[in-house]
Amino acid sequence: MNDFQDWARGVARDMEHTLSDLLPPPDVEPQRLHAAMRYATLSGGKRVRPMLAFAAGLVTEAHPARVKAVSAAVEFIHAYSLIHDDLPCMDDDTLRRGRPTCHIEFDEATALLAGDALQALAFEIVSTHNLADNPATQLHMLHHFTKACGSHGMAGGQAIDLANVGKVITLPELEFMHILKTGALIRASVQLGALCGRALRADEMVHLDRYAKCVGLAFQVVDDILDCESNTEKLGKTAGKDQDANKPTYVSLMGLVPAKRFADELLADAYDAVASFGDSAIRLRQLAEFIVRREN
Amino acid sequence: MNDFQDWARGVARDMEHTLSDLLPPPDVEPQRLHAAMRYATLSGGKRVRPMLAFAAGLVTEAHPARVKAVSAAVEFIHAYSLIHDDLPCMDDDTLRRGRPTCHIEFDEATALLAGDALQALAFEIVSTHNLADNPATQLHMLHHFTKACGSHGMAGGQAIDLANVGKVITLPELEFMHILKTGALIRASVQLGALCGRALRADEMVHLDRYAKCVGLAFQVVDDILDCESNTEKLGKTAGKDQDANKPTYVSLMGLVPAKRFADELLADAYDAVASFGDSAIRLRQLAEFIVRREN
Repeated sequence: MNDFQDWARGVARDMEHTLSDLLPPPDVEPQRLHAAMRYATLSGGKRVRPMLAFAAGLVTEAHPARVKAVSAAVEFIHAYSLIHDDLPCMDDDTLRRGRPTCHIEFDEATALLAGDALQALAFEIVSTHNLADNPATQLHMLHHFTKACGSHGMAGGQAIDLANVGKVITLPELEFMHILKTGALIRASVQLGALCGRALRADEMVHLDRYAKCVGLAFQVVDDILDCESNTEKLGKTAGKDQDANKPTYVSLMGLVPAKRFADELLADAYDAVASFGDSAIRLRQLAEFIVRREN
Repeated sequence: MNDFQDWARGVARDMEHTLSDLLPPPDVEPQRLHAAMRYATLSGGKRVRPMLAFAAGLVTEAHPARVKAVSAAVEFIHAYSLIHDDLPCMDDDTLRRGRPTCHIEFDEATALLAGDALQALAFEIVSTHNLADNPATQLHMLHHFTKACGSHGMAGGQAIDLANVGKVITLPELEFMHILKTGALIRASVQLGALCGRALRADEMVHLDRYAKCVGLAFQVVDDILDCESNTEKLGKTAGKDQDANKPTYVSLMGLVPAKRFADELLADAYDAVASFGDSAIRLRQLAEFIVRREN
């Protein structure tokens, strides 16, 4: 795993530069908005979605410059979703990645608009840079990416999450919520990374998507386990928050030990899904393991 | 103008169907989110941006099905911007198009997410439907459209608008704000409508864009005049709001009579910009006049 850690650190370092380059400069009007966009995106985050895009790009021998751009786009969407999620009318959180949340550091209106502008920027990047061998593939990327963000994807998942607070829900209902809320963007990350390279056969895309589904769910299951087991300092965000908010989680519905077993099963499934890609999927496998074994 | 009114009513009626068809059905999960998206978009609005797209599409003989789709996309962006603009942390408004604003009818979190999902939906539509003769043109559309919505466009304009409250600003500063806040999306409407049809020469695109710039500014100048002269009932939104909020307007900076003269000058400029298009620009001309002469 040492080699993986070097690779992961390399991706994270590269992303920091790419994100900074693609964000509007802080000295250009409207400065406060641009400062908020940069604050919420730079200096922090595990960069899991970019890593997924890079790892998927290795399978299709994608050009790194292309993968960097799509990774940044995905990360901008992720950052926007966190800004809006932390707002008083949503989760009302004050701490994120060990720092004050965007609306605490700036103000609510600026945070709202920073999220809005980051969403637009993400799609602008995928429609502007040369990311695929032909424009039709790039439109295809945008189709999947935009869909993953809307009411049948991330935004829809957040709405279901809100509606679930304090409710008794079933495991399939919890899963449906997560497949939209975090799963859609994780699947888009894998898909966009892969589409930057050579065309895959339909069955290969299905394998990759199965991998992404498993990893997306595993990510959430592990998040719930960490929220229950870890502490605020380690997480860089408020621990025990879900329990306090009376939110249904994998741990509350399954129990801690079965939740851990479920995460292991998802990891095995993810391995299995990319078995046919052989060595080219080594980063995808390592990344799945990293996601399940992480401590924050 | 009778003929124009028929045409305008036809576009508005068509749009109502198109918007409804392209919005997620109200009975699909998450229902509350979808209901909020539909509430904020359907049954109301002047549909000025769709009319601009249709009028521009006539210049390039664009296929109506294509123009309908881009018009809906633009209108979804407009609707999302109004939802977020009305939120308590922004303008804190309770009345819009004669009805309770989205966060009053639903709740703040749902309104926030409905806006977010509408933005994603707008870009999804332009990346999904067949809107141009080649995918490269369609990517070009998306490039302009996404840029018009971000921090160098609409979202940036809203941030500047917020920063201006209670401040003494100059006329050029006011103009810069409006060029971003409302102008960018109006220009995108004209551009997208035109790009649905035959390719225009560069100089023709410049003419169309000059028209759009004039109309966009005129729209705002007239808004300020109406906010000062009209009443809440006629406007369907809170009148005198800008003055109460101590917001700089064309009327407060120029005075009422010079503001009216400025609107007339912009109308004349708009006419001039599309003179070379002859008869094909008749709707563009009528629409500019309608925007300047409207009473709400």
